Amino acid sequence: VSAGDPREIGSAISVEQTIEFPHELAPTWIQREVVGQITDVTESEVEICYNPDVVGGEFIQFLNVLWGNVSLFPGVRIIDLSLPQSWLRTLRGPRFGIRGLRERLGVPHRPLLCTALKPMGLDPTALGAAGAQLARAGFDIIKDDHGLANQPWAPWRERVEIVSEAIAAAAAEAGTHSIYLPSVNVPIDRLEAAAFEAKELGAGGLLVLPGLVGFDAMRSLAENDALALPLMAHPSFLGSHVMNPDQGISHGIVFGTLMRLAGADISIFPNYGGRFSFTQAECREISAACTAPLGGLAGIWPSPGGGMTLTRLDEIMNFYGPDVALLIGGDLHRGSLDLNAEQMVTKVESFPPTP
Amino acid sequence: VSAGDPREIGSAISVEQTIEFPHELAPTWIQREVVGQITDVTESEVEICYNPDVVGGEFIQFLNVLWGNVSLFPGVRIIDLSLPQSWLRTLRGPRFGIRGLRERLGVPHRPLLCTALKPMGLDPTALGAAGAQLARAGFDIIKDDHGLANQPWAPWRERVEIVSEAIAAAAAEAGTHSIYLPSVNVPIDRLEAAAFEAKELGAGGLLVLPGLVGFDAMRSLAENDALALPLMAHPSFLGSHVMNPDQGISHGIVFGTLMRLAGADISIFPNYGGRFSFTQAECREISAACTAPLGGLAGIWPSPGGGMTLTRLDEIMNFYGPDVALLIGGDLHRGSLDLNAEQMVTKVESFPPTP
Repeated sequence: VSAGDPREIGSAISVEQTIEFPHELAPTWIQREVVGQITDVTESEVEICYNPDVVGGEFIQFLNVLWGNVSLFPGVRIIDLSLPQSWLRTLRGPRFGIRGLRERLGVPHRPLLCTALKPMGLDPTALGAAGAQLARAGFDIIKDDHGLANQPWAPWRERVEIVSEAIAAAAAEAGTHSIYLPSVNVPIDRLEAAAFEAKELGAGGLLVLPGLVGFDAMRSLAENDALALPLMAHPSFLGSHVMNPDQGISHGIVFGTLMRLAGADISIFPNYGGRFSFTQAECREISAACTAPLGGLAGIWPSPGGGMTLTRLDEIMNFYGPDVALLIGGDLHRGSLDLNAEQMVTKVESFPPTP
Repeated sequence: VSAGDPREIGSAISVEQTIEFPHELAPTWIQREVVGQITDVTESEVEICYNPDVVGGEFIQFLNVLWGNVSLFPGVRIIDLSLPQSWLRTLRGPRFGIRGLRERLGVPHRPLLCTALKPMGLDPTALGAAGAQLARAGFDIIKDDHGLANQPWAPWRERVEIVSEAIAAAAAEAGTHSIYLPSVNVPIDRLEAAAFEAKELGAGGLLVLPGLVGFDAMRSLAENDALALPLMAHPSFLGSHVMNPDQGISHGIVFGTLMRLAGADISIFPNYGGRFSFTQAECREISAACTAPLGGLAGIWPSPGGGMTLTRLDEIMNFYGPDVALLIGGDLHRGSLDLNAEQMVTKVESFPPTP
């Protein structure tokens, strides 16, 4: 809380996020059991505890209690979140997480190698050809650039079909295990169908944009046992929640905790020192939230991206350690894609260095 | 743009929102036709023009181009938006809007009278009884409080059924035309089904939370010809986009333009001088965006709420004029609900004063 008295603001929040009603007019039992309760106050912080019944067993209402109307309060930022085990047990969470994806991809120790197909404007055959090069080089995950949707240059279904085939053929030929993750940033009424269509066409996972389709839509994909694909979450549209130091939600909660609760296996965010402005401390916070204890939910992969370069690989791996999904896109195309990809794979495969 | 040189930042944005790729490495035709083009720069503003093909005919991708990765740029705020008529013609937009809702409710001239059922914690019968009182008094729209979801005190289906019946019976008896708008802040996999279920149970419209279900989900409800219910949009979770004066999206675009594009008929936002911090200028901007020319899309109802009081009614009506959906909740419960409701209806029915 950066504006006003924390106890007063906390009191307003605890009412706003529950009964939205003059507190003194509510029946006593509602004041006690439904309204949030202030459990701690310091000079600038306030801790509010909510009855889990306020969430009513639905993830989307959890988001509403967390940041619904209070998103419209000036000077309020959520910096910590503690969730009851009983509620966490009701969530499916990440289906694969760090361990599951290591098993699925046959990568027991090193960081994951991820990249994106770009630039927008290329046709499916050209995107497939680039995908094939990256698959031959041994990239683990080759995803659609997050801006690829249903543009005339590479319509969604045609792209998914051609790129899936190209990557699968190249991986089989080269003996690698690359998977393709098409973006399911599709009209929401087509989301589930598109996810299954992608799977049938050979996708090995999905790129999801929870800022646009909603965190709850990602949750629904993650919980779908018939789909059962790894999900990589992209931060598009979510920046507003974290970019104001005085207001919003902490980086760790948005890109770590919420992503895990909503079932992402990998969470992409802008790395420090790239095209964006996240600090080392913010990236560390995200990375920590990806693996911190959270009921029985699996730890997930932090995936720093956003203008990463080959020359920074060592530094990034040392910063995050081996449980990181390295995301390098455009920089691979400076010079020879084949040589760059090979160089990156070699470097990452030798990490962590044997002692 | 509040940090750095507008042309440089604009150039970064135009690449970021399209190809996300080193500009100089992209084929010339992609640089020209796919990347956004800077069309104007001033000391602190930059205008970028995108090829409509980048949106690929899908509303969700329009949001991605508007505010996807750039949401992670510091110091960038979207303050104006100009959309091609050809693209606007592809959108359904608000099904009712100001004119349609006036016809449907039989309210040709005056502001609409809206209120919310609260507090959370009441059972469906108690909520229904309050709804009946408000319907007898002549409120046009009686909505669920936005925090009502599927809590044990008033589970969703039971609440919608009992409250619909109570309001319909009271309205029939009193000869008013009140409609009930239950909240469809439900798990996204149940959204469409819940909308139809609500309609079957007697709902006269729906309360939608686009910050949580997504703007595109609201669009899908608005476009559904079999559903064809008025939609009232609530600002929950959307505050982050507007609360930072240096970063984000303007109030008018979020609560006016985007709401209309996504098919809301009524857009709720916190009024100036209530529990929240919007200024008069920001509220005026929202109100203007609700009715400004936007292709052939219907103008929609600004619905200022958030701690409105009966004593401020005249001032609010003078500020917004007759095309406003007045939203008063908790304050009606100070003293006698019946008397307060009657007083409010009388006051609003005599507006605008006959000259």
